[in-house]
Amino acid sequence: MKEPPPLRKDVCMNKKKPTYSDISRITGVSMATISRIINNSGSVKPETRQKVMGVMKSLGIDTSELSIIPRESNLIIFNVPSFDNPFYSTIIHGAKASAKRNSFTLLINEENIQDRNVDEFTALLKKSKATGLITTNQLAPHILEKLDRTVPVVQCCECIRDLDIPFVTINDVATAHMAMEHIIALGRKKIAFINGPIRYKYAQDRLKGYIQALEYAGIQKDQDMIIQLSEINFDMAVSAAIQILNSPKRPDAFFTSSDVYAAAVIKAAKRLGIQVPRDVVVVGFDNVEISSMCNPSITTVNQPRYQLGFLSCEILVKRINNDPTIVGSMYLETELIIRESSSISLNYQES
Amino acid sequence: MKEPPPLRKDVCMNKKKPTYSDISRITGVSMATISRIINNSGSVKPETRQKVMGVMKSLGIDTSELSIIPRESNLIIFNVPSFDNPFYSTIIHGAKASAKRNSFTLLINEENIQDRNVDEFTALLKKSKATGLITTNQLAPHILEKLDRTVPVVQCCECIRDLDIPFVTINDVATAHMAMEHIIALGRKKIAFINGPIRYKYAQDRLKGYIQALEYAGIQKDQDMIIQLSEINFDMAVSAAIQILNSPKRPDAFFTSSDVYAAAVIKAAKRLGIQVPRDVVVVGFDNVEISSMCNPSITTVNQPRYQLGFLSCEILVKRINNDPTIVGSMYLETELIIRESSSISLNYQES
Repeated sequence: MKEPPPLRKDVCMNKKKPTYSDISRITGVSMATISRIINNSGSVKPETRQKVMGVMKSLGIDTSELSIIPRESNLIIFNVPSFDNPFYSTIIHGAKASAKRNSFTLLINEENIQDRNVDEFTALLKKSKATGLITTNQLAPHILEKLDRTVPVVQCCECIRDLDIPFVTINDVATAHMAMEHIIALGRKKIAFINGPIRYKYAQDRLKGYIQALEYAGIQKDQDMIIQLSEINFDMAVSAAIQILNSPKRPDAFFTSSDVYAAAVIKAAKRLGIQVPRDVVVVGFDNVEISSMCNPSITTVNQPRYQLGFLSCEILVKRINNDPTIVGSMYLETELIIRESSSISLNYQES
Repeated sequence: MKEPPPLRKDVCMNKKKPTYSDISRITGVSMATISRIINNSGSVKPETRQKVMGVMKSLGIDTSELSIIPRESNLIIFNVPSFDNPFYSTIIHGAKASAKRNSFTLLINEENIQDRNVDEFTALLKKSKATGLITTNQLAPHILEKLDRTVPVVQCCECIRDLDIPFVTINDVATAHMAMEHIIALGRKKIAFINGPIRYKYAQDRLKGYIQALEYAGIQKDQDMIIQLSEINFDMAVSAAIQILNSPKRPDAFFTSSDVYAAAVIKAAKRLGIQVPRDVVVVGFDNVEISSMCNPSITTVNQPRYQLGFLSCEILVKRINNDPTIVGSMYLETELIIRESSSISLNYQES
């Protein structure tokens, strides 16, 4: 093995801790490559790896944690509960971009992880030599902890906040409150809420935001106006919307925890000859493609989906690499996108 | 190692080739487990495996191809070009069900495989120890052959038919012809066709079916009525539809090679105050969720997506296991689902 080049005086005399840029200057190796070596990831020529580690040692940096042979696998598994929900595609794009940037491979698995199949799932993680897991699932705490004992985990979107497992999500309470404020500002008071399965944290929090906004506006909560569905299913939501629109308590607005439900309300209104937004204002959640495809197009909440995926994977890579600069968890900003289904002031004409 | 149990007389005297059921009877091991052993897959106790193989040997069955240690990996990669297309979710469900049934694990990758990244992709296959690949991508022949030299490949939906690589797909020419016949039967003659990127086999074939149907009906083909878009993009299709609807050649019907395009035509018609289906009949393709969510709901072609995925994976497993009962390739049946966007006879009223 060749000796590392002698240290340059300007670095030796500097009492400060050597930086990536010092190592880059001495070795002539790019910062990106040095980062890959320090993070034990692949795609670095063995000679380059040896050269950089030699210089690091001579600078007094502890290289005992680093390996001449990079880790065997760079596989990250991204688990989604269901591909039927178009919500995940952009999140996956973000996570994939981060994985690539960090020389990791990201593969996607679709599984609703429960007690009955968690062992099968951890066997999959081991068999595929996965180094980390991003989950967007609603999981029981003991299952999440079990997964985290198998490989480092980051929770994306749906999460349990009181475990010591990082998450990247949005503030669903505040976001639902904001969407409701928009509806209330239009003068609507009989606001129905169609919500997803209440076992999900997002559903619990959006319900809280809905109730909070009613309280702030001094509107009496009416339990009949809260429709809890057992799954995100278009036909089920059409039936539920028709039922309440045909009842004596006909709502003058709908807030829904998913754009699929909002599209269902529009379908139901159409069948009953009720005009959206004139008779009934509709606001959805998630800004998936159907929200702009619908007629009228749907006012909705945009989640920064690409960023949710990207940052989840960035945090996971830091966990895998035991990087001390790791940020624990994050709440990302949301925004309301106002479209035809709530544009009364724009004097929207249904054709 | 314990000796296998002595052979029962009724089997020994039978000159026929012993069957799974004979082995099961002698060993007391279930047929499913015997199948897993013969297919070299995991999830079988080593003792059971040894016992069954001992009996098989004594029955004169060649067990030299079978291993006491099952293959290291049971991973199948299912590659999609893009998660943005909701078309793939049900196909993946089908493939996953088949993988599970055969004791394989299926993980999903999203990659547009081209010359620039094919080496990266084959590296992924090797690193993850994948045993097989299902691809739904449009691939250059030399790339497909390269992938097939790395692991056994089955093509699903999009395929190159003249290579010796199995495929499971539909007959796009005949299906497009059938959809066009429905439009022509409604008395429409000015039928526009919005098509996806022509590099895809499905786009080439659906165009053929469109032209064939016009010829059969004695309708002159008009090149201005054929709109080739460079991607499956809703906004792009809305613009294209507005342009042709505003032109002197305004179509009285649209056939589109994707439901996303059909939804875009409905949006464009709405903006221009043109009624669907009265003024313009619209027929899509794929029967994705938006086709029933749209107002009016969209007449479309249903592909047997679950079966496409399931059978692709069944064939792949047989390829992996060198199973002589393998079926080469398959064309599956399609059906036309008639909804509001072409229901003139039902006297559909736009509200």
